[in-house]
Amino acid sequence: MDIIEIINKKRLGKILSEEELKFVIKGYLNDEIKDYQMSSLLMAIVLNGMTDHEIIALTKFMLESGEQLDLSKLGNIVDKHSTGGVGDKTTMIVAPIVASCGVKVAKMSGRGLGHTGGTIDKLESIPGFQVNISTDNFLKQVQEIGIAIVSQTNNLVPADKKIYALRDVTGTVESIPLIASSIMSKKIACGTKKLVIDIKVGKGALIKNLKDAKKLAKLMIQIGKANNMEVVCLLTNMDIPLGNNIGNALEVKESIDVLKNQKCGNLTTLCIELSCYMVSLGLNISYDEAKEKILESLKNGRAYQKFLEFVHYQKGNLEELPESKFHYEIKSKESGYLASIDALSLGKLSMHLGAGRLSLKDKIDYGAGIVIAKNIGEYIEKEDILMHLYTCKELNPKEISTEAFSINKEKPKQVELVYQVIK
Amino acid sequence: MDIIEIINKKRLGKILSEEELKFVIKGYLNDEIKDYQMSSLLMAIVLNGMTDHEIIALTKFMLESGEQLDLSKLGNIVDKHSTGGVGDKTTMIVAPIVASCGVKVAKMSGRGLGHTGGTIDKLESIPGFQVNISTDNFLKQVQEIGIAIVSQTNNLVPADKKIYALRDVTGTVESIPLIASSIMSKKIACGTKKLVIDIKVGKGALIKNLKDAKKLAKLMIQIGKANNMEVVCLLTNMDIPLGNNIGNALEVKESIDVLKNQKCGNLTTLCIELSCYMVSLGLNISYDEAKEKILESLKNGRAYQKFLEFVHYQKGNLEELPESKFHYEIKSKESGYLASIDALSLGKLSMHLGAGRLSLKDKIDYGAGIVIAKNIGEYIEKEDILMHLYTCKELNPKEISTEAFSINKEKPKQVELVYQVIK
Repeated sequence: MDIIEIINKKRLGKILSEEELKFVIKGYLNDEIKDYQMSSLLMAIVLNGMTDHEIIALTKFMLESGEQLDLSKLGNIVDKHSTGGVGDKTTMIVAPIVASCGVKVAKMSGRGLGHTGGTIDKLESIPGFQVNISTDNFLKQVQEIGIAIVSQTNNLVPADKKIYALRDVTGTVESIPLIASSIMSKKIACGTKKLVIDIKVGKGALIKNLKDAKKLAKLMIQIGKANNMEVVCLLTNMDIPLGNNIGNALEVKESIDVLKNQKCGNLTTLCIELSCYMVSLGLNISYDEAKEKILESLKNGRAYQKFLEFVHYQKGNLEELPESKFHYEIKSKESGYLASIDALSLGKLSMHLGAGRLSLKDKIDYGAGIVIAKNIGEYIEKEDILMHLYTCKELNPKEISTEAFSINKEKPKQVELVYQVIK
Repeated sequence: MDIIEIINKKRLGKILSEEELKFVIKGYLNDEIKDYQMSSLLMAIVLNGMTDHEIIALTKFMLESGEQLDLSKLGNIVDKHSTGGVGDKTTMIVAPIVASCGVKVAKMSGRGLGHTGGTIDKLESIPGFQVNISTDNFLKQVQEIGIAIVSQTNNLVPADKKIYALRDVTGTVESIPLIASSIMSKKIACGTKKLVIDIKVGKGALIKNLKDAKKLAKLMIQIGKANNMEVVCLLTNMDIPLGNNIGNALEVKESIDVLKNQKCGNLTTLCIELSCYMVSLGLNISYDEAKEKILESLKNGRAYQKFLEFVHYQKGNLEELPESKFHYEIKSKESGYLASIDALSLGKLSMHLGAGRLSLKDKIDYGAGIVIAKNIGEYIEKEDILMHLYTCKELNPKEISTEAFSINKEKPKQVELVYQVIK
């Protein structure tokens, strides 16, 4: 087999055979296929697409490139994935809620890159918190307390790791087949048989419109079926940030508020929705039965207790959450109703404040970020505070744009949070 | 500017600005843009195309990446280019014919790769022949004897050199915009203002069908206009090999036969046609007037004398043309009319006999190749010799396939040689 012939075939829009896809993954991992050949093939895949059969085969060979966990002895395990958004701290909230309802969560998470954060970075903002845990200890922890969130090991789907790094620098990220196989190969390798996926749709997200989100959902459900995995996809709004806090330690604080049942709004609503589908899948009960359990657990404090138990087990100390040196207040230049908040531009602002990294080598300022002071639909007076910025960099607050906040004369309609659920 | 944003733009089918194209060429040449990014962009260009304006700008920036010759003081100069075919030795024949009619030829040529040969390799099969000549001596030679054919220097269009090498290994060769800008940037850099291009069409060629050939022709004429260059394109048949000989020294021998006016057939016809357009362009006379001069020059031996003068000037010795150690006769397994000869498979066979190279590092056996013993339309008896093979490798002639020769019961129609001329 010859990589140039394979590239030419995909360039002409033809279907690659299982043998050819296997050759590509194997050859790329052992450096027989060069980066410049892989990127040319990836661009041909982005533009000419892949059949479901090709995508399922691609996922399989990526999966087989590394270690695969066996969680079958652990009981009711449900995994959760989010395609990533600004202020998305749902994993930190949902995992303890679900675990407190008797469904185990054994989760391997990633770090953030660009304007979206990663759960691992957020947890690491808690002083002492350990994310690099051996597979044995990871399984033991899940067995003992029903919840563990750790950093993905290097042995899991090395093909995805290498291909993802290449896609990131070659303009080949936005491809539904490639996104689907990347997510699903990692999830299947983690050993879960039940999975709830939060597909973020909107300006601040990888997936920009509902049509693509539906395609991606159906594809991941298909890949799941081919691998004996039950998948539920929630298509959710990512035009506005999720919750009020953006930035690592700030998001931990907000998560605690939700878990303490002291906060309402889109973040809380979404966390309850995701938990409902996870508990319903894990315990084989109805959505309504699941919801009852979840609300009860939030009310009686068991969800929050589970969170504390989890943080304690992984050696985190919540008493000393970091805060950045400087605090700036950004005020409104006009009055009116807050109609929308641009997630993408606040994500970028938070990154520049020090909360995110442009390259994987950059260091994060865990205390940095944004607290949004107003909610959609609220009436704002001129000079009201729109957001608080936390950073170690000296800034002139007057130079910070407030364009992310759209302020209108008329009260906006309520924004839809969950567009659709696809099973 | 950011290369990932530029790739994303072309991936979405948008038009790149002149500044962006300049950034790409400059950045790739100084290694700021990596091979894997360039190949991903090239694939996006192959699949999403480019506007004429983009292609003209791309050509310009490629051109400006290196040295440009000024031939304006040399008088009537006409250049010639072929997109490459099996057995295509027309440059060796056409250049002396044209020079003997008073039109100067200052030609920089390339080496062969894959199943098509290069003029420089063919000339180098003449013992002693020098192809690496300084620019000053090259211009002096053209001034003195009206003809010079040398190897393209490294200083001419370095961007094309680097991009072409990458396209060759990333499945991005077959793209009309990229082919057009590659050819035209080199030709413009050579300083000619009049150019005849032989676009080969067919199974043995880069361009497989007449539709693409027309597109390519019109594009190159456009690029020519934008650079004050007159371009004439001949669209010619490359389903069957050109002439009877394939392989370097064997093609020199056949060229001599044509120049001595001792051979007719498709090769001679095409050489006369190409010469007509070149002489007509160079002397500003009609096609018919040009043809008269050319036939006269072939008849009175001046064309052949010019060839000898040219070879002598570049230190070649025609007395000692190499011949490979072994000679095999391949016979027909059936009888009937010879309907067609597959140029591609004979090109590949010749390469395997030693006449070509798979990689630019391979050494060529200059004496190796094929002499086709029969012409299209001829009646063949079983056991008649179809071709002679010359090689330094030991072969079993019975194992050599004769499938390249299609033999039919009925006499085939005459094959069209020149499909169309586009000015």
